[in-house]
Amino acid sequence: MRWILPSERLPEAWFNVVPELPAPLDPPLHPGTRQPVGPDDLTPLFPMALIGQEVSSDPWIDVPGEVLDVLRMWRPTPLVRARRLEEALGTPARIYYKDESVSPAGSHKPNTAVPQAFYNKQEGVARLTTETGAGQWGSALAFACALFDLDCKVYMVRASYEQKPYRRVMMETWGATVEASPVDEPDHPGSLGTAISDAVRDAAGRADSHYSLGSVLNHVLLHQTVIGLEAKEQLALAGEERPDIVIGCCGGGSNLGGLALPFVPDRDVDLLAVEPSSCPTLTAGTFDYDFGDTAGTTPLLPMYTLGRDFIPPPIHAGGLRYHGDAPIISNLVKSGRMRATAYPQGKVFEAAVQFARTQGTIPAPETGHAVRAVIDEALRAKEEGRERVILFGFSGHGLLDLQAYDDFLGGRLDQG
Amino acid sequence: MRWILPSERLPEAWFNVVPELPAPLDPPLHPGTRQPVGPDDLTPLFPMALIGQEVSSDPWIDVPGEVLDVLRMWRPTPLVRARRLEEALGTPARIYYKDESVSPAGSHKPNTAVPQAFYNKQEGVARLTTETGAGQWGSALAFACALFDLDCKVYMVRASYEQKPYRRVMMETWGATVEASPVDEPDHPGSLGTAISDAVRDAAGRADSHYSLGSVLNHVLLHQTVIGLEAKEQLALAGEERPDIVIGCCGGGSNLGGLALPFVPDRDVDLLAVEPSSCPTLTAGTFDYDFGDTAGTTPLLPMYTLGRDFIPPPIHAGGLRYHGDAPIISNLVKSGRMRATAYPQGKVFEAAVQFARTQGTIPAPETGHAVRAVIDEALRAKEEGRERVILFGFSGHGLLDLQAYDDFLGGRLDQG
Repeated sequence: MRWILPSERLPEAWFNVVPELPAPLDPPLHPGTRQPVGPDDLTPLFPMALIGQEVSSDPWIDVPGEVLDVLRMWRPTPLVRARRLEEALGTPARIYYKDESVSPAGSHKPNTAVPQAFYNKQEGVARLTTETGAGQWGSALAFACALFDLDCKVYMVRASYEQKPYRRVMMETWGATVEASPVDEPDHPGSLGTAISDAVRDAAGRADSHYSLGSVLNHVLLHQTVIGLEAKEQLALAGEERPDIVIGCCGGGSNLGGLALPFVPDRDVDLLAVEPSSCPTLTAGTFDYDFGDTAGTTPLLPMYTLGRDFIPPPIHAGGLRYHGDAPIISNLVKSGRMRATAYPQGKVFEAAVQFARTQGTIPAPETGHAVRAVIDEALRAKEEGRERVILFGFSGHGLLDLQAYDDFLGGRLDQG
Repeated sequence: MRWILPSERLPEAWFNVVPELPAPLDPPLHPGTRQPVGPDDLTPLFPMALIGQEVSSDPWIDVPGEVLDVLRMWRPTPLVRARRLEEALGTPARIYYKDESVSPAGSHKPNTAVPQAFYNKQEGVARLTTETGAGQWGSALAFACALFDLDCKVYMVRASYEQKPYRRVMMETWGATVEASPVDEPDHPGSLGTAISDAVRDAAGRADSHYSLGSVLNHVLLHQTVIGLEAKEQLALAGEERPDIVIGCCGGGSNLGGLALPFVPDRDVDLLAVEPSSCPTLTAGTFDYDFGDTAGTTPLLPMYTLGRDFIPPPIHAGGLRYHGDAPIISNLVKSGRMRATAYPQGKVFEAAVQFARTQGTIPAPETGHAVRAVIDEALRAKEEGRERVILFGFSGHGLLDLQAYDDFLGGRLDQG
């Protein structure tokens, strides 16, 4: 069963959680002076509209009409009740998922790629640079740049560039140029941190170019709140007063934030972040100021971090292999408003395959983390004989990650 | 702009075009006796419910509730107005597409895979066999068998088996077993015809198994008519009285039939089949009785054919590489109710990339054929200064066909 809102019910304002946070959000610091960064520090990289959103404390921020027009190409996305999964588990829990895999790029990432491309175009920027790991974000920005007629340069972690040629082809089909990172060390497998350094360096060095980030920052999470805003309205259509728990996988935090932030004011809704055991930022990291990239070129962000030099093992959920976490997510976890848990990838793929065989859609490995936690919550509800309403974010499909499923089904997957 | 119907507007009966055909449909013949085949000839391969549908002349046939429940996982599918493509072309035409790429398997194929799995399950069959070329059909049947707890064996054309490992992984993720065909000639690249022979031979030899076909037959096209029935209702919502032309790519004919058959009674709606120049069944074949497979194990079907020994060149639109065509489609073309046209694949990929860069979604190579014809119709409307309403079938996405895009963008595509 699916609940789909008509086009005109697409949220026309983004929800800004900042005024609702349990504790004030610490500002990003300049790495040299350790003073809060100002707009002047950021204008070489971002348009003023996004810098304004990054520091805004307005509770709602209007979505421009041109952005709405593009989002309506696939939004509102469906809210789906996972009845077949419920039946397979024999759980009294009612499981709903918000299906962000229906976007042209196959994930939630275009929700922020589109406004970022729009604001840059509006301020006369001709070219955007970015990094991509698993490829979801690079694909989304390539798609958005095609629609707004911007050039797009994607620095792709070399290991992915070589192992996932189809992600590169997808970006090139939308007109982007893709280069393996690090650009100056052809034998280095690369990491998200090195690719960010390459992309920032490129944009900072060219007057026609800006840089675009697909997660972590406040304005990125802000753009993603359309997910949770729609889900609230759809749950009401489904006859649910509220979810008992909201679950999302968490790498940089944009997918989880997009779904969960609109529920922050609803104090009795449990919020759960799911991350890989091999990159346990929220569950085993420390809360501190740290750089967003490996080279130390970004401002210092207040977040849970494993250290900017942390190189996660090459697990298949590349979108979750990040040493830090969004300051907003870190704030919520630190204050106790959000919980976090971690799973090894073997258990994740077990859950992802069970989902595919009951609900049809094959989850991205990142999404599989949320599915794992959902199944465990539903089984707990069964043990306890409790009705529970579970809402989770189906952040993306796994059609460009089938190598990982082949490894799992063939018994070749590192279980860790 | 998209028009989406609520779940309860999913059509509850399939439209049977047979009573509306301009000329009576010739029956399939037994290859030995050349007499019309009877149910007894077909029961080793198909359940009675499908045999009944194959020969029915009822104008409407009810969709079972269990089938509706599954189809509602992704249906009704969106009708989308391709405004950005219209703008890029500067055409006065209004272009709408019915987006079948949103199914879990990524194409229209599950519309018939689901009822076929259901009827077989209902009659106590434990296992289905089938063939697949490009992989769209095999994926759809693997998905449907997972939902109805049936074993599934897919014979995959060896060339595709080796070149498209991700399609195989997709089927295996849903629990199917996949084997390269022909099974007894490991050096043979295979063809759809040889794979059909392998699958039929397997099913005929085992009491627990039936065979399932993804196109060509009357019951397959019948199941696909949900596409056109929904599109009619959605066009009305969009304020259109009727389309001037309905366009679909055509291999065996199930995608085109699904969209176009409900428009057959609307005499002023032009119907257009689009096929590859390299496998020009409707535009250069002869209308005759021919076998559905290479080995000559199937009944003889009245259809346009290039001869069952015709081996099409290895173009990327594997789903269109079939020597014959559905008897229903052949009947419509022969009587003049439907037109056909053919395009070389270089022109097809040019159109597919233009679609991806304006509308976002990357078309399957098969779907690209329809897009090519749509663009040419829209440009003709521009030349003639005529408003035209164009409806086409977006039969599937190309996310598992990105190698073809890489070849095109890299200048390595055979243009023919």
